[in-house]
Amino acid sequence: MTGFKRYLPILQWAPGYRPDQAASDLLAAVMVTVIMIPQALAYSVLAGLPPHVGLVASILPLVVYAVFGTSRSLSVGPMAITSLMTGAALAPIAVPGSPEYITAALLLAVMSGLMLLFMGVFRLGFLANFLSHPVTSGFVSASSLIIIASQIKDILGIDMHGQSLWVLGRDLFAHLGQTHWPTVAVGAASIVLLWGGRRFAKPALQRLGFTAPRAGLLSKTVPLLVVVLSMVVAWTFSLDERGVRLIGELSGGLPSLVLPTTDAGLWQQLAGSALLIGIVGFVGSLSSGQSLAAKRRERIDPDQELIGMGAANLASGLSGGMPVTASLSRSVVNFEAGAETPAAGAYAAVCIALTTLFLTPAIAWLPRATLAAVIIVSVSTLIDVRSLVRTWRYSLADVGAMLATIALTLAHSVEAGILGGVVLSVGLYLFRTSRPHVAVVGRVPDTEHFRNIRRYDVQLCPNVAFLRVDESLYFANARFLEETVLDLVTREPALKDLVLVCSGINLVDASALKSLETINERLRDAGVHLHLSEVKGPVMDRLKRTDLLDHLEGRVFLSTFDAWRALAPSGECPPAGVAP
Amino acid sequence: MTGFKRYLPILQWAPGYRPDQAASDLLAAVMVTVIMIPQALAYSVLAGLPPHVGLVASILPLVVYAVFGTSRSLSVGPMAITSLMTGAALAPIAVPGSPEYITAALLLAVMSGLMLLFMGVFRLGFLANFLSHPVTSGFVSASSLIIIASQIKDILGIDMHGQSLWVLGRDLFAHLGQTHWPTVAVGAASIVLLWGGRRFAKPALQRLGFTAPRAGLLSKTVPLLVVVLSMVVAWTFSLDERGVRLIGELSGGLPSLVLPTTDAGLWQQLAGSALLIGIVGFVGSLSSGQSLAAKRRERIDPDQELIGMGAANLASGLSGGMPVTASLSRSVVNFEAGAETPAAGAYAAVCIALTTLFLTPAIAWLPRATLAAVIIVSVSTLIDVRSLVRTWRYSLADVGAMLATIALTLAHSVEAGILGGVVLSVGLYLFRTSRPHVAVVGRVPDTEHFRNIRRYDVQLCPNVAFLRVDESLYFANARFLEETVLDLVTREPALKDLVLVCSGINLVDASALKSLETINERLRDAGVHLHLSEVKGPVMDRLKRTDLLDHLEGRVFLSTFDAWRALAPSGECPPAGVAP
Repeated sequence: MTGFKRYLPILQWAPGYRPDQAASDLLAAVMVTVIMIPQALAYSVLAGLPPHVGLVASILPLVVYAVFGTSRSLSVGPMAITSLMTGAALAPIAVPGSPEYITAALLLAVMSGLMLLFMGVFRLGFLANFLSHPVTSGFVSASSLIIIASQIKDILGIDMHGQSLWVLGRDLFAHLGQTHWPTVAVGAASIVLLWGGRRFAKPALQRLGFTAPRAGLLSKTVPLLVVVLSMVVAWTFSLDERGVRLIGELSGGLPSLVLPTTDAGLWQQLAGSALLIGIVGFVGSLSSGQSLAAKRRERIDPDQELIGMGAANLASGLSGGMPVTASLSRSVVNFEAGAETPAAGAYAAVCIALTTLFLTPAIAWLPRATLAAVIIVSVSTLIDVRSLVRTWRYSLADVGAMLATIALTLAHSVEAGILGGVVLSVGLYLFRTSRPHVAVVGRVPDTEHFRNIRRYDVQLCPNVAFLRVDESLYFANARFLEETVLDLVTREPALKDLVLVCSGINLVDASALKSLETINERLRDAGVHLHLSEVKGPVMDRLKRTDLLDHLEGRVFLSTFDAWRALAPSGECPPAGVAP
Repeated sequence: MTGFKRYLPILQWAPGYRPDQAASDLLAAVMVTVIMIPQALAYSVLAGLPPHVGLVASILPLVVYAVFGTSRSLSVGPMAITSLMTGAALAPIAVPGSPEYITAALLLAVMSGLMLLFMGVFRLGFLANFLSHPVTSGFVSASSLIIIASQIKDILGIDMHGQSLWVLGRDLFAHLGQTHWPTVAVGAASIVLLWGGRRFAKPALQRLGFTAPRAGLLSKTVPLLVVVLSMVVAWTFSLDERGVRLIGELSGGLPSLVLPTTDAGLWQQLAGSALLIGIVGFVGSLSSGQSLAAKRRERIDPDQELIGMGAANLASGLSGGMPVTASLSRSVVNFEAGAETPAAGAYAAVCIALTTLFLTPAIAWLPRATLAAVIIVSVSTLIDVRSLVRTWRYSLADVGAMLATIALTLAHSVEAGILGGVVLSVGLYLFRTSRPHVAVVGRVPDTEHFRNIRRYDVQLCPNVAFLRVDESLYFANARFLEETVLDLVTREPALKDLVLVCSGINLVDASALKSLETINERLRDAGVHLHLSEVKGPVMDRLKRTDLLDHLEGRVFLSTFDAWRALAPSGECPPAGVAP
């Protein structure tokens, strides 16, 4: 794809858009709206924002994503983890809910959007690779725990603040005496209904004669039903007069253009958070989109997804909304309800806009405890203990990065958790490759193959050593290579030729090149010739641009066997099993 | 080596110390003292410290290194780059030369020492690997430029401040009118003498009948001779009365115990700088030590070097000195003058202590312009344009990291330069490995070998694809692998079996394991079996701890040819050259 068609995936599907596709998309849109409305309300409150900001963020971004996105299933809007991160980023800046706070939230969406757009246009999507699986998984689990802890205040009707588990726990114990029992009743009832609905609605509907997929979809309406029920109860029994906190009057209205603040200090202060929120949201939505696309043998273009998600965030911030991304749970519903094109998202936007226009007076009656219950029940599925156990079994280095991410997230902050995890996993990778597997190899008798002398009964030759390095050579292991070779030479004073078998070397960077030169010089000082064998094509092309090969004391052999034939005439080499 | 003997290399050489070794060491110590004294004075002034701090830092650290260090040639003491970094770290904290400034400098040495000791005991020497060759080389060149620029003020006799080339340049133009010509005369004469001595002293001495090595060593006394000459001139002509700035009265005296400040805020503020100064110093001294040790087929233990250098810095800070490290130029002199054991350093310490005790009144007459000339001439050799050109030819990624380091160092600060360079080189490495070389391979007819179908005329089979990945699988390329495989499957709808040839895979981390599981699931959804072949031993051991192999739709083959025989019965596969 070239030109602007690359940037406008809508041009690929819109011209052939059929009525039957429109029907499927519409049905999916209604289902998505049903899940989206409780989530939009809940996640904006989670971020410390008025519910209206969440609704607005579920309108224009969906339309924009339909134009720029490549996934046919992703459902864009507020999401739990990014909302938590938004709240954490804004907490030091202003009082939650204040005009300055809202302004900063909008700016966060705009900046996040601009950064993703930038990354998309310049194809910097590989930056998302820094978020390794252990870090992402640990971060999501720990964030979910914090989200649940932060919602306890609304279930108990008490005051709590803070972003870390530590502060939240301290506040909880300090205010436990103020527990407001009518609120607890509403919250507990909501949790039971939501949890029961998730557990039993589908089998019950199947017993009533619905097919499994249809029963599954219908069961997803439970959160909306619980929300509506709680509003009816709150209105009937005037729960607000009994001290149960409600959402209250929404500022209401459709999205309108809000230019971002020009406060340069605020831009600077939020830059780091905006980047993290953008990348975390992008990584989550990309993996959701790819897993759904694979089921239809479709493809998702990561760089274009950056543009789609960037444009959606920009649209959100400019229309008065908060940072958005695709949530897996919502996207799965969209997929299972039969969405065939990104238009489904645009239709959902219309449904949500109508809700925002006409139903805000009713939403005012929604108890905060019910919203907290929605958050707790939906977020609890994100805690992934199984992944922790499996990583533990697989690799201590990886589980170390995961535990560090979890500990930092819980004890300090979400940003510290993710940054610490990234730094640690990069550090651990460099550590693991800094001491690569190196084997002295010998000839398997009567063959052209060479194997590790520690594992196989191979033929050796007294004055020639064959050393195989199973790793690309780069700055992290360049010094190790020097030390290994010099060690070998110090240990074997009779050595005259050293052949570096390069079959496992996919890259030699400038630091390693310098080390190879150093090794060559030091071996020359020690009277040993350095040879290379089995250098891969791309590595050789690059080495030819340097003067290493001119200064090389030895030769470059195509195969290790060639080197053997040239350096170790058979008469001189004892047969296998006899130590030289 | 076990127990405390590992930590005390002195126990290896001291028991067998011979008189002839002592004689060689003493001669080397005198030579090192001759170079050390001008350098100690110059580098303490470069760091904004009184000259006495530099002299003190050249006494106790040398003795301590003789006990804990493993190199027989390294000469420890103040060094140009670390002195520049010391000055840059202290500039925001206090006025250069003030008591608070000196206290902070001592603390910097203590912290730097403690950090290196910690790294040595816990064998964290691999952290130094983060400083890739392009970053180190670029950083040293850029720092040298800044050092030279910062000395212009003393040559011209004007006032200049600032740590970046930009601020220094602005100040230079603002104060150029104040140029003090007598000072310029002293500075210019010193530069000419120093430069001329470096260029012509050796050949002149050879012509007088000295052997080349002896002439080389004698020529190293030129800086001290110039310093003495300038003191004599300053005293004879009372240059201080003509406005030429002199070093002035030194506080003098031998080192004495100075406990580090307990100001916790200062510890926190200096922690980052202390770590950087420690690591930069360590990397420089380690490579100097290794290159000298290799000439005698000796070995240096990097972890023990951390302890030696850490103890030396701790000793420096506790005895009233600044951060120290080994300089290559000084160590080469030590080596060429015949130092045989680390005792040479201890003897040099005695010589310097005597100088400090008895010659401080004379040093007061030293013109600052001469000291600036010593710095400029010795640092100018560190600017390595050749390395830049060679890296440019070799690899654009590496030269990018180098240029970024240079630009950040010159335009912002030494710390920004080194941190930016490290972050960029790690990022570039991840970027390079995030899109590894992947080849669809086919069978070389009538052999058991498999080669890239784009480069060789090989045999293929319609429903089986062999995919070889030439890189370890880890978080940076895990997603790329998923995309590559799914791409292949989307492009070839008839595919039934996919064999992943793992000969180039040295490591599979938890993220890549997750990707392999995802690939297996998605291929299953698409009706394709995933097989593995040529999995390396250590990788297989680890995979066996997971349930990937249980869930694998296909099989694990020892060799790719085994897979070929099992999946592609010869009757079905067209001969080479015929597209399937």
